[in-house]
Amino acid sequence: MRRIMLRVSYDGTGYSGWQEQENAITIERELNTALSSVTGEEISVIGASRTDAGVHAEGAVCVFDTDSRIPAEKFSYAANTRLPEAVRVWESTEVEPDFHPRHCSSEKTYEYRIWNDKFDNPLMSRYTHFIYRDMDVEAMNEAAKCLVGEHDFKSYCSTKAEVLTTVREIVAIGVERDPAEKRLVRITVTGKGFLYNMVRIIAGTLIEVGTGLRTVDSVKETLQKRDRESAGPTAPAKGLILKRMRFL
Amino acid sequence: MRRIMLRVSYDGTGYSGWQEQENAITIERELNTALSSVTGEEISVIGASRTDAGVHAEGAVCVFDTDSRIPAEKFSYAANTRLPEAVRVWESTEVEPDFHPRHCSSEKTYEYRIWNDKFDNPLMSRYTHFIYRDMDVEAMNEAAKCLVGEHDFKSYCSTKAEVLTTVREIVAIGVERDPAEKRLVRITVTGKGFLYNMVRIIAGTLIEVGTGLRTVDSVKETLQKRDRESAGPTAPAKGLILKRMRFL
Repeated sequence: MRRIMLRVSYDGTGYSGWQEQENAITIERELNTALSSVTGEEISVIGASRTDAGVHAEGAVCVFDTDSRIPAEKFSYAANTRLPEAVRVWESTEVEPDFHPRHCSSEKTYEYRIWNDKFDNPLMSRYTHFIYRDMDVEAMNEAAKCLVGEHDFKSYCSTKAEVLTTVREIVAIGVERDPAEKRLVRITVTGKGFLYNMVRIIAGTLIEVGTGLRTVDSVKETLQKRDRESAGPTAPAKGLILKRMRFL
Repeated sequence: MRRIMLRVSYDGTGYSGWQEQENAITIERELNTALSSVTGEEISVIGASRTDAGVHAEGAVCVFDTDSRIPAEKFSYAANTRLPEAVRVWESTEVEPDFHPRHCSSEKTYEYRIWNDKFDNPLMSRYTHFIYRDMDVEAMNEAAKCLVGEHDFKSYCSTKAEVLTTVREIVAIGVERDPAEKRLVRITVTGKGFLYNMVRIIAGTLIEVGTGLRTVDSVKETLQKRDRESAGPTAPAKGLILKRMRFL
């Protein structure tokens, strides 16, 4: 029995998120179906992160166990011939049999993308959130800095989350306009773990800073209040991309 | 009666191109339907260029005549409330009543986009053509240079085209990797007019140069042969974007 790790990209549009559930098409199910077909075994992948419905990924990670003799690096090619175009495995490697992608120290980088122009752009709208008001991106970047470090992110967590602790660590966060396409704004967040909806609530709050609906200081005040009500709205799923994962 | 000019972006996926035709959903029909609803008149737009099925645009142009009293610049907003998300009007202005977007001197810029990596990327595949072989982009750029100027582009024109002359002028052409995302390759072509499938055949031929299937010199030799058979294949529609139009 070998444990294989996959790195996966997907267009989350129309998917009910990562996690397998009844009566819903999920990324996990697509991978299980493709890999079961490749191996002739009943495969159940273990994902490193469970993205919500409509969220995209360029660097999702999962593992699965198999007795198949297919060389580890060939699983990506074999899976891709059976996966829909919206899901692609771009790396497959063998890992230690006890490697569990959620029970080890890792860093994830998420990108939240905003299209900031007078009109929405059909060629961007699948993967960006459209904001027509002019945004002060420098103010957003300044406001975000207080989130770096280990904090109780209760204000930036969905009230639906059931977790033992809402303390998490953000390693880096930045907001900037794309140098070549100024209408594209990226919020990039790297952390050792994230709460339910955390990046989308941070994005929704920073957008309010950018459009002048709240002050730069309010982002820190919200952190201290430990109250979801004091943060901004949860920004739409389609602007969020899980960019990469790094195991430490 | 006033003549209004629109600048339009659209995601051409799933559309049967620009031009109105029976039993097909086209960009032209979407605009006619939306503008007729806005004005209460029966509107027929005149397009500046007729993109093929699956081709995208960020800078398509069309005009229409109306007796409506809506201020010219408001048509973009009014149309967008009635258009599907895949089509957006981002500028509307009044022009001279005799301005015809196909009967005046103009320059169009097309971009052909290629995703050049070992695996396709689901977040790019809607708007790029995937090439897994490593491409020599400098060779492509060098090969393209011979196309600049006024030439008989018969070799780079679909044999289905019915035109009086296959002479056209390319003002500029360049091939380069995106500085921030090296896997994205852009062929950018500006010209005063294009033949049927011309940019896609140029792209298909340059891709053959990039992947070593033909020499740099063969692009010029093909131009001289005036024979469609000597050029490369027509690259897929989804990689092509009409970027902008300029009236001279």
